[in-house]
Amino acid sequence: MNPFDLKDYLVQRRVRIEDSLKALLNDRTVPNSRVGEAIRYSLLAGGKRLRPILCLAACEAAGGDANDALAAACALELIHTYSLIHDDLPAMDDDALRRGVATCHTKFDEATAIMAGDGMLTLAFEVLSDTWVESQNRFGPSEKIAVIHRVASAAGIRGMVEGQMRDIAAEGSALSLEDLTELHRLKTGVLIEAAVWCGGFLAGAQDHLLDELGRYGRSVGLAFQVTDDILNVAGDPEKLGKSVGTDAKRKKSTYPSLLGLSSSKTWARELVKEAIDAVSGFDHRAEPLRAIARYVADRQR
Amino acid sequence: MNPFDLKDYLVQRRVRIEDSLKALLNDRTVPNSRVGEAIRYSLLAGGKRLRPILCLAACEAAGGDANDALAAACALELIHTYSLIHDDLPAMDDDALRRGVATCHTKFDEATAIMAGDGMLTLAFEVLSDTWVESQNRFGPSEKIAVIHRVASAAGIRGMVEGQMRDIAAEGSALSLEDLTELHRLKTGVLIEAAVWCGGFLAGAQDHLLDELGRYGRSVGLAFQVTDDILNVAGDPEKLGKSVGTDAKRKKSTYPSLLGLSSSKTWARELVKEAIDAVSGFDHRAEPLRAIARYVADRQR
Repeated sequence: MNPFDLKDYLVQRRVRIEDSLKALLNDRTVPNSRVGEAIRYSLLAGGKRLRPILCLAACEAAGGDANDALAAACALELIHTYSLIHDDLPAMDDDALRRGVATCHTKFDEATAIMAGDGMLTLAFEVLSDTWVESQNRFGPSEKIAVIHRVASAAGIRGMVEGQMRDIAAEGSALSLEDLTELHRLKTGVLIEAAVWCGGFLAGAQDHLLDELGRYGRSVGLAFQVTDDILNVAGDPEKLGKSVGTDAKRKKSTYPSLLGLSSSKTWARELVKEAIDAVSGFDHRAEPLRAIARYVADRQR
Repeated sequence: MNPFDLKDYLVQRRVRIEDSLKALLNDRTVPNSRVGEAIRYSLLAGGKRLRPILCLAACEAAGGDANDALAAACALELIHTYSLIHDDLPAMDDDALRRGVATCHTKFDEATAIMAGDGMLTLAFEVLSDTWVESQNRFGPSEKIAVIHRVASAAGIRGMVEGQMRDIAAEGSALSLEDLTELHRLKTGVLIEAAVWCGGFLAGAQDHLLDELGRYGRSVGLAFQVTDDILNVAGDPEKLGKSVGTDAKRKKSTYPSLLGLSSSKTWARELVKEAIDAVSGFDHRAEPLRAIARYVADRQR
């Protein structure tokens, strides 16, 4: 057996997801629409596509066909990208650069960026309730409802939106390690966990496997955030495609500011180990999940 | 038979909807959450509740129990209120007053208002995919999926979001009557039509009745907008709970600016007649729909 090539896997999955996103936008956006153009700009500006790739990889790990999770994967990327567009707004983080290019409100304007975000969030639920992706036809309405409910709960006021609110509110004030971790669980963790859950669920995985995927998702989500904080201190802005040192400038509590850089790195590695352990009951088809967990803490961008 | 008392009907329906919205927020918001507080503030600041009332009234007109449409009604009001919060932002219409009180970003701040809107939009889909309202249990997942798809499509980039984009883009430039009507169809019409459709659908109405309700919704939606434009010229800011003369100040094309005030009033009355005609095949249970159509053009606020 050839050793698993993560780089190749990620490229293939990214292409599949981006092709689907392009097809979706071609199908759904109104010709010559300014908000449609802004959505296309932000959605196709690159990015790691971590959430949709995790969704597809979890589907395969649980024995499913990755195509079956394609609509859910696209919806998750729509929601993630909307959250970035709104986070970057002047009233929020006021960032000029994202994924190596001008942020949506810098390229267009604030009003357009707000509406592009609103449109993408809504489009996610349009996709999840649709039969746009051929393979969606394989699922009955009860599977679709379960996925919609999981995604809406993760993205909403008891998930991502609450996490983002706490993130903004916490600027300039010192958080405890516990509060910081809860903030990140809400802001990024629950959506990543939902991505993995959706993949497993659409593969027909049983509850105990979904629980294991859930533990994997929680650990990977946190490892991702700890690494994000580390990269904001010690990363290369060129590779990252965004500015560094911004957390310190905003006096944000981060893992490096609370634990130090070295302990943060150690912790990220421990979280990766926990993630890999969580899926130890899965066979070789979970190799992408294991490799992604390692990548999440080793990444340079 | 007593004559139908619209005022009494509207009060009763408003109370039922607002009680449900309060129960929803009590159930779903995180204690001491700033974004939860902002959502509560904006959602419970009053308002006509036109969309949820139309949803319940259409359900009854088609022979259903209004309670069956309560979750859909709440979701529609969440979406409508989110759109108001985002429309009022400084980058959009920059309004300080809404429903007679300070707008969300004025009372809280811009970041909180953006997230409150995002949270409400997401909560709408959480509610629609849930069994939160007791009567939701009466519906199977396929009914829920149909409602979610209709609502998401109406609120999204081929509906409300596109309409709002055109509205912002059109400021300061003269629109044709046709373009103005298409703008309003997208911005408000499709969501009102979706409200009526959901009510009828959840009552189990057959396709030809849903078509008639659709025609009613389109006419009422447009009559509502024509009247909105008229009130912005000739209304009483005290009664309206918002400023008047703002359209002219922003050089927005409106029905009065294109047709004159008198012809606009005539057209609003014609649209009301069309709406009433559309539901002529319904029995006395459609009396609320007929009375609401008349009210939409006669209203002072």
